[in-house]
Amino acid sequence: MDEFDIDVLADPALDEPVLVEGLPGVGHVGKLAAEHLLEELDSELVRRVYSTHFPPQVSVEDGRTQLACAEFHAVTPEEGRDMLVLTGDHQAQDNEGHYGLTTTFLDIGADFGVEEVYALGGVPTGELVEEYDVLGATTTDDFGDRLTEAGVEFREDEPAGGIVGVSGLLLGLSERRDTPAACLMGETSGYLVDPKSAQAVLEILQEVVGFEVEYESLEERADEMEEVVRKIQQMEEQNAPSPADEDLRYIG
Amino acid sequence: MDEFDIDVLADPALDEPVLVEGLPGVGHVGKLAAEHLLEELDSELVRRVYSTHFPPQVSVEDGRTQLACAEFHAVTPEEGRDMLVLTGDHQAQDNEGHYGLTTTFLDIGADFGVEEVYALGGVPTGELVEEYDVLGATTTDDFGDRLTEAGVEFREDEPAGGIVGVSGLLLGLSERRDTPAACLMGETSGYLVDPKSAQAVLEILQEVVGFEVEYESLEERADEMEEVVRKIQQMEEQNAPSPADEDLRYIG
Amino acid sequence: MDEFDIDVLADPALDEPVLVEGLPGVGHVGKLAAEHLLEELDSELVRRVYSTHFPPQVSVEDGRTQLACAEFHAVTPEEGRDMLVLTGDHQAQDNEGHYGLTTTFLDIGADFGVEEVYALGGVPTGELVEEYDVLGATTTDDFGDRLTEAGVEFREDEPAGGIVGVSGLLLGLSERRDTPAACLMGETSGYLVDPKSAQAVLEILQEVVGFEVEYESLEERADEMEEVVRKIQQMEEQNAPSPADEDLRYIG
Amino acid sequence: MDEFDIDVLADPALDEPVLVEGLPGVGHVGKLAAEHLLEELDSELVRRVYSTHFPPQVSVEDGRTQLACAEFHAVTPEEGRDMLVLTGDHQAQDNEGHYGLTTTFLDIGADFGVEEVYALGGVPTGELVEEYDVLGATTTDDFGDRLTEAGVEFREDEPAGGIVGVSGLLLGLSERRDTPAACLMGETSGYLVDPKSAQAVLEILQEVVGFEVEYESLEERADEMEEVVRKIQQMEEQNAPSPADEDLRYIG
Repeated sequence: MDEFDIDVLADPALDEPVLVEGLPGVGHVGKLAAEHLLEELDSELVRRVYSTHFPPQVSVEDGRTQLACAEFHAVTPEEGRDMLVLTGDHQAQDNEGHYGLTTTFLDIGADFGVEEVYALGGVPTGELVEEYDVLGATTTDDFGDRLTEAGVEFREDEPAGGIVGVSGLLLGLSERRDTPAACLMGETSGYLVDPKSAQAVLEILQEVVGFEVEYESLEERADEMEEVVRKIQQMEEQNAPSPADEDLRYIG
Repeated sequence: MDEFDIDVLADPALDEPVLVEGLPGVGHVGKLAAEHLLEELDSELVRRVYSTHFPPQVSVEDGRTQLACAEFHAVTPEEGRDMLVLTGDHQAQDNEGHYGLTTTFLDIGADFGVEEVYALGGVPTGELVEEYDVLGATTTDDFGDRLTEAGVEFREDEPAGGIVGVSGLLLGLSERRDTPAACLMGETSGYLVDPKSAQAVLEILQEVVGFEVEYESLEERADEMEEVVRKIQQMEEQNAPSPADEDLRYIG
Repeated sequence: MDEFDIDVLADPALDEPVLVEGLPGVGHVGKLAAEHLLEELDSELVRRVYSTHFPPQVSVEDGRTQLACAEFHAVTPEEGRDMLVLTGDHQAQDNEGHYGLTTTFLDIGADFGVEEVYALGGVPTGELVEEYDVLGATTTDDFGDRLTEAGVEFREDEPAGGIVGVSGLLLGLSERRDTPAACLMGETSGYLVDPKSAQAVLEILQEVVGFEVEYESLEERADEMEEVVRKIQQMEEQNAPSPADEDLRYIG
Repeated sequence: MDEFDIDVLADPALDEPVLVEGLPGVGHVGKLAAEHLLEELDSELVRRVYSTHFPPQVSVEDGRTQLACAEFHAVTPEEGRDMLVLTGDHQAQDNEGHYGLTTTFLDIGADFGVEEVYALGGVPTGELVEEYDVLGATTTDDFGDRLTEAGVEFREDEPAGGIVGVSGLLLGLSERRDTPAACLMGETSGYLVDPKSAQAVLEILQEVVGFEVEYESLEERADEMEEVVRKIQQMEEQNAPSPADEDLRYIG
């Protein structure tokens, strides 16, 4: 296997599409958002990307295996712009892999004529979030202005630690290709898988890209998560032994 | 030395052989199973694979050294199919090494005309196992059906974390070459070297591949392990200080 | 992206310049010193160096992103020698990256005709420093003699652990190219960002390279840090719970 | 800089020399032994090996810097065989580096016509050693027989974990080149720098290679270490707070 191996599964023509990335990260916000798009809209699997920088791992579902990979789906909705949606279960396992995979992702985007890149993710607040603001970061002032109009917040020093992983590099490397790119980061506690934050991010994306999706399934998932949080809070109030910190992370 | 260095020690012709892999892993199930095959059946050492991704290490036996490697033995039993058995003391030490070594292993298999791949291993249950089920995962539905008939269990969401290391990649990379591959995973506590689980896996393999072996030595080793477990349980019942968790892992 | 990618932003002619490096390190002494030079003297951004050995990260300021990089500024002061000043927010993340980046930095220096290299940094003393001595290390005896005259201290066995990272390699690799190089290390506690140590280092550099800068802003920053230290000492004296060790490191 | 960079400093002709390696390791036994040879016998520095797999570091002595490297000295004693002695302050920092460096070392040895390789080191016993046995491991039975005659012990299962790092690979990779190689491992507690163990190893090497050296300076150093041990034991007997475990390791 090559360092980066691309399987071509279909090659539909897309009309000035945008690239939408949702790989695993804080609160699984980006991944939940991107996967929700694929559940709600018709899509076609067009590329699988394998890499020696992914974990040496197959996932198993109903006894069938799938080698660790990232997937691109083409979405051509009736309303709004065409999209190339990037999802997967893994980030690269090392620095060089992050740079190489992101380059590969942008190369695939370029093959489809991608004109704008949206990296979706979460930004941890450290406490339970009441109102789900969406923070932004962009490669150009123009793009920033359009997102501000759509309700995205841009703050002087946030996120303080910058943006790491594929989402960060999608912006950094897009800028070096003169492709406008933005990161939409839903506020999230950082302790739980957060479907509400994913919905907040998607509502912004819907505004700027123009598709139409329902949020019922995300809302149901959010209700389940709130039920989990309620139970944990009850346990704590009753002085019952609370689940260990470890368990609290990424209940989902 | 090259990144992957293959020593050719013999080159017998094999008739539509299957590749059987048993490298170190959970409960040393795969390694015990593969080594038992080599003890019970006549075999010939045909390849040694050295790699800069193995630990920088020699083992020492009676004062003689052997550089870290993986070994292929050819087995041409009177009953059943020819086999190419892959054993060793090491997994690769990094991601890239896992991918590269597995590719090298499959290339060697292809040179011998391997038609099917069996990765042997253990799946941890976290508790002492009474009945040794063997879980399966395959690259094709056909292969899955044949294994189901032989008594292998296929479960919806197991193993939950997928299959990692060389065993996982043997399936993932075989699929990309259109070579049918299966992983046979014996249930095991995960705390002890588990000869019983190895026997359960071999009995399945015997059913599908068709060789004949005795299990006396594995059963003796299993009795020794049960004696160890009994002593630990007695110590715990007597409130005697139990061995540290650390010590419980991989007694063998 | 290549392993090391150089963006050429300007190409002014410099007259026998010296290379001055100030990347993050102990007490941020080198970084503070180099950044102070750029604040006080007119400078021009001439090169950005990107690398797959930097963290996969963009920094965000006012919503705009900047891919992890190192920057070279050309400084042609009225008094003293021309300088090429190397700053940035990151060190390489692995050994190979340290060697490769330093080689790239020296190649850029060679393009500008750099005749001498000054690596700026801090040396940790483990206790609050009263008098800010500057320790030196050089590749040649001549260079050492000149620095001794300027007030740099050379001690038999210091720094005991040698010099690590880009600063260390700038000396090690310069020596192999026959370019004289020195490391100027301001004594610093190692617990706090230390503007006073940075000033001590700059005052030496000023003496040997010949520029003229004010230190008001560094002094203000040093006053702020002393205020922080005073408050911590008060808290400790009042037996109030002191900030955790973790917090004490790199307050700045 | 290349991945492995060799500086040629001198090129004397050696007569069927043996390669003697003493890099840092358990009890610094190998390093002490090799450095003692260079102190006691006339020698000439013939090669420096630099590598991107060494730490990114310069050492500093009297203000002058030296880039991390390994050094080969040629020794042509009046009695006994010519020797090529390999010393240094560093092991490689990663697997690939261990394999690559050892290959480079053996290539240099081959250039000088090396006929036998001796890797010197320590084997940890976990307790203070009374009688300093020297364990052996070799690539050939012949070599083993000669060392047995010289007093080296060969034990069935020791060292249990094999031999790691450059010493291990010098044997593993020499075997693949058909160069006879041996590891001489002095028993040592593993907690202290151990000049006595180094002397025991050298006395064996003296027997098989045939040089003549004094041990006075090693004995003095051993006395100093015993004084340290005595003080620690006194402190423990007086119930005085003993130095932390951390401090006990590698006092020297």
